Amino acid sequence: MFDFDLVVIGSGPAGQRAAVQAAKLGRSVALVERRAMVGGVCVNTGTIPSKTLREAVVYLTGMSQREMYGQSYRVKADITMDDLRERTNRVIAREIDVIRNQLQRNRVELVQGLARFADEHTLVVEGGPGSERRMSAEHLVIAVGTRPAHPDSVDFDDRTIIDSDGLLSLERIPESLVVVGAGVIGIEYASMLAALGVKVTVVEQRPQMLDFCDDEVVEALQHHLRDLGVIFRFGDTVTAVERPNGGAITHLASGKRIAADAVFYAAGRQGATSDLGLAEAGLEADERGRIEVGPDYRTAVSHIFAVGDVIGFPSLAATSSEQGRLAARHACGADAAAIGAVLPIGIYAIPEISFVGRTEEELSSAGIPYETGISRYRELARGQIIGDSYGMLKLLVDPDTSHILGVHVFGTGATEIVHLGQAVISLGGTVDYLVDAVFNYPTLAEAYKVAALDATNKIAALQRLTG
Amino acid sequence: MFDFDLVVIGSGPAGQRAAVQAAKLGRSVALVERRAMVGGVCVNTGTIPSKTLREAVVYLTGMSQREMYGQSYRVKADITMDDLRERTNRVIAREIDVIRNQLQRNRVELVQGLARFADEHTLVVEGGPGSERRMSAEHLVIAVGTRPAHPDSVDFDDRTIIDSDGLLSLERIPESLVVVGAGVIGIEYASMLAALGVKVTVVEQRPQMLDFCDDEVVEALQHHLRDLGVIFRFGDTVTAVERPNGGAITHLASGKRIAADAVFYAAGRQGATSDLGLAEAGLEADERGRIEVGPDYRTAVSHIFAVGDVIGFPSLAATSSEQGRLAARHACGADAAAIGAVLPIGIYAIPEISFVGRTEEELSSAGIPYETGISRYRELARGQIIGDSYGMLKLLVDPDTSHILGVHVFGTGATEIVHLGQAVISLGGTVDYLVDAVFNYPTLAEAYKVAALDATNKIAALQRLTG
Repeated sequence: MFDFDLVVIGSGPAGQRAAVQAAKLGRSVALVERRAMVGGVCVNTGTIPSKTLREAVVYLTGMSQREMYGQSYRVKADITMDDLRERTNRVIAREIDVIRNQLQRNRVELVQGLARFADEHTLVVEGGPGSERRMSAEHLVIAVGTRPAHPDSVDFDDRTIIDSDGLLSLERIPESLVVVGAGVIGIEYASMLAALGVKVTVVEQRPQMLDFCDDEVVEALQHHLRDLGVIFRFGDTVTAVERPNGGAITHLASGKRIAADAVFYAAGRQGATSDLGLAEAGLEADERGRIEVGPDYRTAVSHIFAVGDVIGFPSLAATSSEQGRLAARHACGADAAAIGAVLPIGIYAIPEISFVGRTEEELSSAGIPYETGISRYRELARGQIIGDSYGMLKLLVDPDTSHILGVHVFGTGATEIVHLGQAVISLGGTVDYLVDAVFNYPTLAEAYKVAALDATNKIAALQRLTG
Repeated sequence: MFDFDLVVIGSGPAGQRAAVQAAKLGRSVALVERRAMVGGVCVNTGTIPSKTLREAVVYLTGMSQREMYGQSYRVKADITMDDLRERTNRVIAREIDVIRNQLQRNRVELVQGLARFADEHTLVVEGGPGSERRMSAEHLVIAVGTRPAHPDSVDFDDRTIIDSDGLLSLERIPESLVVVGAGVIGIEYASMLAALGVKVTVVEQRPQMLDFCDDEVVEALQHHLRDLGVIFRFGDTVTAVERPNGGAITHLASGKRIAADAVFYAAGRQGATSDLGLAEAGLEADERGRIEVGPDYRTAVSHIFAVGDVIGFPSLAATSSEQGRLAARHACGADAAAIGAVLPIGIYAIPEISFVGRTEEELSSAGIPYETGISRYRELARGQIIGDSYGMLKLLVDPDTSHILGVHVFGTGATEIVHLGQAVISLGGTVDYLVDAVFNYPTLAEAYKVAALDATNKIAALQRLTG
């Protein structure tokens, strides 16, 4: 027999949730984590620190208050890395505590060490020099996550050329920074640093950023970032970085050179699978370290599952967590719904972006007609009260059935208020629900009502003309 | 024939919306407003100023940041009435602008002056000395709102004994204040002033405050307010107020005396109907100046409607606005749904409260069984990031059908996130939707998922025991 019913490798959102779910279903579960701390990249160097940092930046810079108190308004004139880090460390410590408690409460055995497969049912966990433990399991869940991709040509030194881990441990805030890569991580940090007054240049080989988001929203964000002084170099790549006199000169393929205090690589992440000994279990990763899975999160070996960032898009904590839960249910033979069809995407840029459902671009290229309804925060009492003059909410509505096809939000609270649209889509509500609903006043939720009225007025106008 | 299809009296949320709705349905509409400014109490002295003030207080006192930066943390050490007022005046001006534009765009004729009925189809509007205009209308909508009730025994002087209008125009923030009345207005101002460091004593004749809210939530708020130094005197009434030496001594029925800089009366509001000449139209108001209406907002005279605060509970801007819209549709013979059965209640205390659906007390006394699911903000990553350790969300779930019977939120963003629960209730979703939904991470919306899991675990435990 096996030592455990289920062993999970990795204690990020996907791994935690898989372990807890299997334990709740009465299984004996172990969770292997290579670090001394649980929580994975999410808690320790990724989502949690970057979102806490963002909150501190928005507050300490007085960003959100400038429309009220003037453009040069700041709560704290000299913001240091220590100001930012103090808050972050406190949140990380508490979050680790919450996770550890939850694992204990559910009697998940936590094993510290580096796991590798000995065979398809057995792991060897190296807990330190000379300390090795073999453990077998009926089912295994790989939730090892990712690490920043380090191109061979780049000489990372944690001071001048850094990745997202390095950024958090910088001694001081640089005066100028080159961000390589305009994906979610690159743009989130670019906005935070620009808000702090850092001169940021973003280099991205594609012709635009965040191409899975709504064009109008991306345009608004880009406009905002330019307004904060961010320079964009799209369609260009970094060919070399020199490090003269403690600074950095970034050379681009187009021949441009950019002087800055530091260069931050946010150009992709790599599945953290290289030390797993996948071959011993009959598995393999692709060239980016990722593991392929079927719709029930089974790998090519049917009792081994993979979930979270290591399986690729969307690589967001909430989705990973749900994948973990569903994989554990499949492993335990419990019934498991397919993952929610309507997953929200949240990008914690400054201002923030969130959406559910389809984009205008997707609908147009699929030949699906839609009508838009738009509300601008500056027309809402709540928008005026909080001084957000740029925020907007856009509904995409099916003109025949009145169903909501997509919700796109830009501005304060976007990642929260998108969930109302998500519920309406998921529960089969129409735009009429939003027209008729009474919302608290003054709130940002009223944006839904205004946008819904806008969409229905446009649809009615079309119907009048077409008889 | 009549001068107008519809004339509305009062330009608050109810009146505005009625006028705009009728205009959109192609009717000729006039709106009479006695003040020089549109917007009614809501914009000028009520909701908007108090919510803007609240936002300024929360920000300038650094309230929300104290868990991060220590209990004595403040953004601005000396907060003056002018700091608070500046922001408020700016928001009021913009909001008036938005309303005025909307009325113009919809070709609603705005008439300034005091309206009174000449007969059941005719108003006389006094625009100033010697300026009188008669206007007749097929339908009329009374949306005159309320004014603070002034008991005869109390000698208001806008300096020592004040109502909510007087509070906004105080020259300086008092050091100590007695608040008479623990209704929504009393509690909202009591929390703001306590947050500013004012020594507040609340006197309320009933044995508790906000008795239409969930008991657990009210207890949490009360605990918080006591923590800010607020003293409550429930079950007691004010018998007299003396004004020696620029201060005030409040005498209570129990014999207590309270010394303070000022006394703020928030003990009810009175329908602003005394100058309307209701009798000429065949109407009458009750002893609190309120007008009775049927389910379609018709008064005893079927072509005259009344909406908004003048018809009583809940006297909230959003509901009033919807009443205005529906009344106009009834007047114009357009189809009109009944007002949403699931109206959210939002109380902008510090921290804020919001709920939809039933309370535990209501369900228990109606003999309807329910299970609770609770989530505490401090267990959520977002709660830790924003430093809200006290917030909570409670779901009341039908254990047989899994439908949501009520949602009660206390803490940051309560008035926004309640709308997700409102949508689930309205669209017939169950607690399973909240268990399965993937929410952005880290957000407060996750409280729904945590609470939903809590409720379903409890329901499952009961089912296991009962077979």
